[in-house]
Amino acid sequence: MRLSQFHLHTTKETPADAEVVSHQLMLRAGMIRKLAAGVYTWSPLGLRVLRKVERVVREEMTNAGAIEVLMPSIQPRELWEETGRWEKFGGQLLKIKDRKDSWYAYGPTHEEVVTDFARQELSSYKQLPVNFFQIQTKFRDEIRPRFGVMRAREFLMKDAYSFHANEDDLGREYRNMYDTYGRIFTRLGLKFRAVVADTGAIGGAMSHEFHVLADSGEDALAFSTGSDYAANVERAEAAAPGPRGAATEAMRKVDTPTQKTCEDVAALLGIPLSRTVKSVAVIGVDPENNPRFVLALVRGDHAVNEIKLAKLPGLTEYRLATEDEIREHLDASPGFLGPIAPAKSILIVADRDVAAMADFVVGANEDGFHIAGVNWGRDLPEPDLVADIRNVVEGDASPDGQGTLGIARGIEVGHVFQLGGKYAQAMGMTVLDENGRAATPVMGCYGIGVSRIVAAAIEQNHDANGIIWPDAIAPWQVAVCVINPKGVEAVNEAAQALLRDLIAAGVDAVLDDRGLRPGAMFADIELIGIPHRIVVSERGLQAGTFEYRHRRASEAEQLDRDTAISRVTAG
Amino acid sequence: MRLSQFHLHTTKETPADAEVVSHQLMLRAGMIRKLAAGVYTWSPLGLRVLRKVERVVREEMTNAGAIEVLMPSIQPRELWEETGRWEKFGGQLLKIKDRKDSWYAYGPTHEEVVTDFARQELSSYKQLPVNFFQIQTKFRDEIRPRFGVMRAREFLMKDAYSFHANEDDLGREYRNMYDTYGRIFTRLGLKFRAVVADTGAIGGAMSHEFHVLADSGEDALAFSTGSDYAANVERAEAAAPGPRGAATEAMRKVDTPTQKTCEDVAALLGIPLSRTVKSVAVIGVDPENNPRFVLALVRGDHAVNEIKLAKLPGLTEYRLATEDEIREHLDASPGFLGPIAPAKSILIVADRDVAAMADFVVGANEDGFHIAGVNWGRDLPEPDLVADIRNVVEGDASPDGQGTLGIARGIEVGHVFQLGGKYAQAMGMTVLDENGRAATPVMGCYGIGVSRIVAAAIEQNHDANGIIWPDAIAPWQVAVCVINPKGVEAVNEAAQALLRDLIAAGVDAVLDDRGLRPGAMFADIELIGIPHRIVVSERGLQAGTFEYRHRRASEAEQLDRDTAISRVTAG
Repeated sequence: MRLSQFHLHTTKETPADAEVVSHQLMLRAGMIRKLAAGVYTWSPLGLRVLRKVERVVREEMTNAGAIEVLMPSIQPRELWEETGRWEKFGGQLLKIKDRKDSWYAYGPTHEEVVTDFARQELSSYKQLPVNFFQIQTKFRDEIRPRFGVMRAREFLMKDAYSFHANEDDLGREYRNMYDTYGRIFTRLGLKFRAVVADTGAIGGAMSHEFHVLADSGEDALAFSTGSDYAANVERAEAAAPGPRGAATEAMRKVDTPTQKTCEDVAALLGIPLSRTVKSVAVIGVDPENNPRFVLALVRGDHAVNEIKLAKLPGLTEYRLATEDEIREHLDASPGFLGPIAPAKSILIVADRDVAAMADFVVGANEDGFHIAGVNWGRDLPEPDLVADIRNVVEGDASPDGQGTLGIARGIEVGHVFQLGGKYAQAMGMTVLDENGRAATPVMGCYGIGVSRIVAAAIEQNHDANGIIWPDAIAPWQVAVCVINPKGVEAVNEAAQALLRDLIAAGVDAVLDDRGLRPGAMFADIELIGIPHRIVVSERGLQAGTFEYRHRRASEAEQLDRDTAISRVTAG
Repeated sequence: MRLSQFHLHTTKETPADAEVVSHQLMLRAGMIRKLAAGVYTWSPLGLRVLRKVERVVREEMTNAGAIEVLMPSIQPRELWEETGRWEKFGGQLLKIKDRKDSWYAYGPTHEEVVTDFARQELSSYKQLPVNFFQIQTKFRDEIRPRFGVMRAREFLMKDAYSFHANEDDLGREYRNMYDTYGRIFTRLGLKFRAVVADTGAIGGAMSHEFHVLADSGEDALAFSTGSDYAANVERAEAAAPGPRGAATEAMRKVDTPTQKTCEDVAALLGIPLSRTVKSVAVIGVDPENNPRFVLALVRGDHAVNEIKLAKLPGLTEYRLATEDEIREHLDASPGFLGPIAPAKSILIVADRDVAAMADFVVGANEDGFHIAGVNWGRDLPEPDLVADIRNVVEGDASPDGQGTLGIARGIEVGHVFQLGGKYAQAMGMTVLDENGRAATPVMGCYGIGVSRIVAAAIEQNHDANGIIWPDAIAPWQVAVCVINPKGVEAVNEAAQALLRDLIAAGVDAVLDDRGLRPGAMFADIELIGIPHRIVVSERGLQAGTFEYRHRRASEAEQLDRDTAISRVTAG
């Protein structure tokens, strides 16, 4: 491929309406053009990347035994009514009326269509298991499409749907897809993590999200430095603490006239924040469904996790207590609350780490005072309930006992899910089992945001000069840059010979024969993120060298021809 | 690939609602499943064929210098209003309102979108010429979708749009695309013809259609047996006849009491049909726009071509004359009309072949009589107008002077068109020319119905047992059929070794290891149209032979292994 025969259109200016770096760089590199809100044309350059992502996904899905189909984008309302999603799916479902006044939707996902396909195609357990996948254009009518193709309305997705005779076989294919996703993101050259997307970690409706790691990611992830464990921070389990230490201090009341936060109290007393306890007053319900005042305790350096708290009995729909409710039960103002001697009967819920503390500090339930040297059992009753109610933090022990937790940000690009019998039941899909009886198959579904990966890869791989593609999805792996192509013919010939040899070595190579000045040419090649660059110049030819530079390297090197080629083929 | 790991679903029954053979066979082979009217899911088997067509189209377009992009399916109303097509396009345009009450269309074609893309991307003549193509899903809201994917609403199309500084360069690229289409359909293994789609054959808005030849085709095509000339029968030019022969008979009135057609008259008189003249009475307008009675004359074995007739002056919106009008002007009933001695002044328009006749037979303008031995000049004045007003017929000389015409039926699968400046003008797209002045580029557009080709290929290639794919687009080129795979293990091993060797030879091969009885297995393989079949059986292994059969062959052959493989690789 010669760039002079290609259509490349880069710009120096950062578009004003692009908020995230991937959107900015895709526009500056000329990979996409906006047609409407959340609707983009992929330019020749952008499409090269998109197709490479698509190819890796297709190959790995096929290698894993999934079978490719192509389902329509236009889906009839009747199918969506069978599952009740015509109404329930909400505003993201783009509804369309045709010339005969029949209603359709532009498919945002294909559970209904694939189940309809399967109920016509599959009639016997002998045809199971089967996993149908497609790589196809979808539309979700986002209220606020943004970040370019990161959250577009029209987008390219790989979706797969598997059908099984029983949950065990679904579990087997789920693991197969989980492993396949790992291979896909590894081949794409991306740093990623699979995170548990639901707390029912083993069995039941198991679900994992695959995240590309990037500082700009929307989701905070906790991952073990010593194992595969990873989860959304909000859902990550805190490791159980060690046994409670023995009491060594006497309980004492301390003056904290203006110290309303654990940080201030710890600073005043000259103790670590982890020796203080934060008391959060909330209102739940008792078994008779009457309001119940609850004090939730976490260590001063921890934060209450609302999802975990809401899983406790009586707290499903808890709310924060009002100042009046607090005064009624504790006879104090927020900032001075604690579990010792409440004015009225309350429920004490302690995080597991709090239950393991000794010689700790809590509010005195008296404005202007805290109590230090507090110990469970000796100074107050054991907590009514001990549970994991906090967010994990960096450095926590991994809940699987291997290594400690780190925190990273991620962009969700894949999701695997055990659907179970939901769709097959709703749509009356059955197959005959071994005994000739009608049985409802169980399903799994497995999605990858193909177009989103392109943006996520940029969020993870860029610098001030532009994109830095992993070799596997670069528009080209190497640019052979010709200095002054209208000058000495031997330079052109050497460049073209080099291009041929690179292509013969299996490298996706492009010749930059546009005749730009070196500075402008190199800026383009860096902006569009070509990982390898070889410069062919008259001076180099005379010296018998080619200038090689990796996109991440700070300096160029003068190499002989074979060495330069081997740098590229080494990846 | 092993069929036991694939999803194949064939049926014996011909679906009642499938009218054409390609639709019937695609359903029976399980290539497609209907989701809604004109909306189909492509099964694993069908998709294999579709993707092979797509790949050939993509490769040849790329080789021809076109650059691939991907434009959205959802297009904003505002763009379509710039060209006036939001209203003009008609009911096929599927209009969509999003959640913010903005209007969009599901793209039936992409002239507006590509011109919008180009006006952002292209600013200088130096960027021209450029030809952008995509392979993308389109929707046309057909009133009567039918024939399966032949006339679907949602379909896959390759569309390309080129931009040029001038008409000459457009003509060059038009020729390039014309030649590329020839290479595409040749590689697909299809018999096809490019036909002139418009009479402005040279220059102007040139346009050609590409048709796959099939008896079931909707369009009748005339093609030269001696050259590339081809055209829709309705638009094909009749070759000029030789000079008029000399009069040898005397004019005489003949009794034709019940003979109202040329066929009956010729039979009665014992002369060839080509000696009779058919008179068709129509009403046009004279230069003052008053109604004008016109008698159009074609040879008895020819038919009036309505499109050609309507191109004559005063006949643009002609209609057939009523019986009253005929009696007023000719004083006779239909069946006995002729150009001699009309009751009132009329206009005589003779087809060129009629003007070249001598000693011919016409109606007498008197019920029950014809006149034979008629000669121009001697018995009646020369015609007022002589023109090509007939359909060509099989055996006509080709209008380019090379060979004679054959007539075939075709299915339109491609169209190349010189758009000129229409869209760029409407949308205000300009580039700077060599003198720095804003200039409007001219455009070409080039479409191929990718999904339609699959159906057209079947219409051309099938028999009573099913589809007969050309090797290039067969789901697999060869099926290695194992007889009794659960029997002798050596048979399985031999089949798998053969499969490996075929694949190593670059053949797309599949192993039928499903364990069906031979009859059912062979019926499936024939129905789904695999062009080559090799049977591996215990008996064959003992004899050292493999049973080879081409899908078109009447008999199977017992061949040694290498010969069997070479039959497949020979295509």
